[in-house]
Amino acid sequence: MSITHTFGLRVRHFRKSKGISQEELADICGLHRTYIGSVERGERNITLKNAELIAQALDEPLAAFFLGTDNEH
Amino acid sequence: MSITHTFGLRVRHFRKSKGISQEELADICGLHRTYIGSVERGERNITLKNAELIAQALDEPLAAFFLGTDNEH
Repeated sequence: MSITHTFGLRVRHFRKSKGISQEELADICGLHRTYIGSVERGERNITLKNAELIAQALDEPLAAFFLGTDNEH
Repeated sequence: MSITHTFGLRVRHFRKSKGISQEELADICGLHRTYIGSVERGERNITLKNAELIAQALDEPLAAFFLGTDNEH
C-alpha cells in the first residue's frame, strides 16, 4: 500500500477513535475539510509539516502513523 | 525542533551509520545530491513519498525517523 494511503487510513482511524468529524479535524488543524477528506483517501502526497499538524490535532505522535504498516519494510 | 529538522538529522544519522555519502544516498533514491543536503539541513518540507524513498534507501522504517523525538509530543 502506498505511504499516502497508509497515512490516510491512520488519520481516519485516529479521527474516528476520537469521535470527531473531518470538518472538526480540519478546524483544529486550520486546514480545509475537503483537504482532510483527500488525505484520508490517500489522494494527497502531503508534506511533513502538514502530516505533523494533523498528528498533533489528533494528539498522536507522527511515528504512530507509520508503525506496524507494510511501509515499515 | 521543527519536524523538517528532526527528519533531516535522522537522515544524516542513518546515512552516516551506513557509511554512505550524500551523493551515494541521492543516487540510490534517484534524487539530487543538493536535495539530500537541504533535507539533512532541515530546509526542505518534503512530501511523504520522498520521505519514504529516503527511508527505503537507508533501509530504515519511516517511523524510525520520528520515534523518540520531541515531535512525539
